[in-house]
Amino acid sequence: MTNLSQSQAAYQQRINHFLRDVIDQLPTQSNTLKAAMAHGLLLGGKRARPFLVYATADMLGVPLEQVDNPAAAIECIHAYSLIHDDLPAMDDDELRRGQPTCHIAFDEATAILAGDALQTLAFELLSETNSDLAPAIQLQLVQSLAQASGYRGMCGGQALDLAATDKVVDLVQLEQIHLAKTGALLRCAVDMSAIIANVDAQQRQTLQQFATAIGLAFQVQDDILDVTSDTETLGKPQGSDEAANKSTYPALLGLSGARQKADSLLKSALQALQTLPYNSQQLEVFAHYIVDRKY
Amino acid sequence: MTNLSQSQAAYQQRINHFLRDVIDQLPTQSNTLKAAMAHGLLLGGKRARPFLVYATADMLGVPLEQVDNPAAAIECIHAYSLIHDDLPAMDDDELRRGQPTCHIAFDEATAILAGDALQTLAFELLSETNSDLAPAIQLQLVQSLAQASGYRGMCGGQALDLAATDKVVDLVQLEQIHLAKTGALLRCAVDMSAIIANVDAQQRQTLQQFATAIGLAFQVQDDILDVTSDTETLGKPQGSDEAANKSTYPALLGLSGARQKADSLLKSALQALQTLPYNSQQLEVFAHYIVDRKY
Repeated sequence: MTNLSQSQAAYQQRINHFLRDVIDQLPTQSNTLKAAMAHGLLLGGKRARPFLVYATADMLGVPLEQVDNPAAAIECIHAYSLIHDDLPAMDDDELRRGQPTCHIAFDEATAILAGDALQTLAFELLSETNSDLAPAIQLQLVQSLAQASGYRGMCGGQALDLAATDKVVDLVQLEQIHLAKTGALLRCAVDMSAIIANVDAQQRQTLQQFATAIGLAFQVQDDILDVTSDTETLGKPQGSDEAANKSTYPALLGLSGARQKADSLLKSALQALQTLPYNSQQLEVFAHYIVDRKY
Repeated sequence: MTNLSQSQAAYQQRINHFLRDVIDQLPTQSNTLKAAMAHGLLLGGKRARPFLVYATADMLGVPLEQVDNPAAAIECIHAYSLIHDDLPAMDDDELRRGQPTCHIAFDEATAILAGDALQTLAFELLSETNSDLAPAIQLQLVQSLAQASGYRGMCGGQALDLAATDKVVDLVQLEQIHLAKTGALLRCAVDMSAIIANVDAQQRQTLQQFATAIGLAFQVQDDILDVTSDTETLGKPQGSDEAANKSTYPALLGLSGARQKADSLLKSALQALQTLPYNSQQLEVFAHYIVDRKY
């Protein structure tokens, strides 16, 4: 189960087309900025966050047309964060998904602006006034994405991660970093479809538990792959965590300990899904994929 | 009329207290990031955008409590843009309002993140669910701010400005840059109060004309002061436009031509206000202040 299932591929295609349209519809006033935004947003990637939006929507009976904008918005946030993370002042990465990073393909100033504009684009997408969704629902989506992306979520987690570089960090702190840095946005992906489906508080919480577990599992597996994979497969330099003096699960738990941790998180994620009265097969497959993937 | 009026000072105090509360209420999980956000947001400045929000609200009979969040949100966007503009890869400024810029007071990575998190905070503030405003109105505010801040507005204008550096730019192009780079956010400030007051389309457009004119006047005066003022008064290095090879109104029109341009824009702004059936005295005073100010 290390490959994307057919429906996973269909979601990926759907979001790629939708994002291409979003970029194409931007006026051509600033061609360089537009190209840099396209570079950051359209170069591929796993599209894990849009997948979670779509698969959760499908599970809850929400038409996919209603979650195209939320799925695109969350991917804009993810793409902006990667562009800024790759900057020389941050992780200083020149390669991402086998391609030059934004500041290498363009320049640093353009990369900073492209990230900024992609973040704004996310909120433009969520606030389109010709939406099928009720304004109160759209507003909840804005709130969910803003809380997940900002100081309390992704940005705060990134700051904790920066502060932890070159320091000894224990498991609790490492988990705190990842719950914010990558977990918040993955929880938000599931939550946005739950908001649109208007599920009850109990089910919303269960979906959050699922997303929290696969979010951590995703990170554990990322850390494992950074040790065990090779640069070509990863599309980025193997061993970059160690080179950057970052704390990782394999460093704290050993490689087999980290693998046990990933399996235990997978189990938690699947248990959460089993309590829901829906056909959660796609989310189950995805949870397996998270810990079985090779890149 | 070069000094802030009493009500202008009251608005300034109001937004400064409100912004301080917003920052204080952030949890303390990432102290450095929080301090860097505070540095960018609370170091003062003219608070021109919150002023426009408040003064327009007062003119239209909107309670100020209803526009605290919009006023704070637009100032978060402005503050983030200054932090990122000051970065070494952009304008490379070490001094702003007489204080070290964010990346000097902290470091580049923290400054990038603080800007990112301040942008997100703007949308968090506009999407608070315990607001007095109807969700449909809040959503329009999100849309207005997102459009004004992003590719079609401020970020796009900044990209045009970068592209114009070291190049000969004519008046039309210079105006296009400033209409987007600074004008979009000033128009948005007035527009947010107009949205909340639910004024008709004609009046909304007239308010936009006013804001467009003072937005350009603001920039013309900025360019003039960069030539005629001194570093201590400005709080930033005098002559930095010329040093950075930026096109300016004095460079294209001469100093007296630039002053005439500012006066003509002031006249347009005042004419727009005179067609409105409201007491627009505070906006008039502010328009005069824009072109008469010495820093």
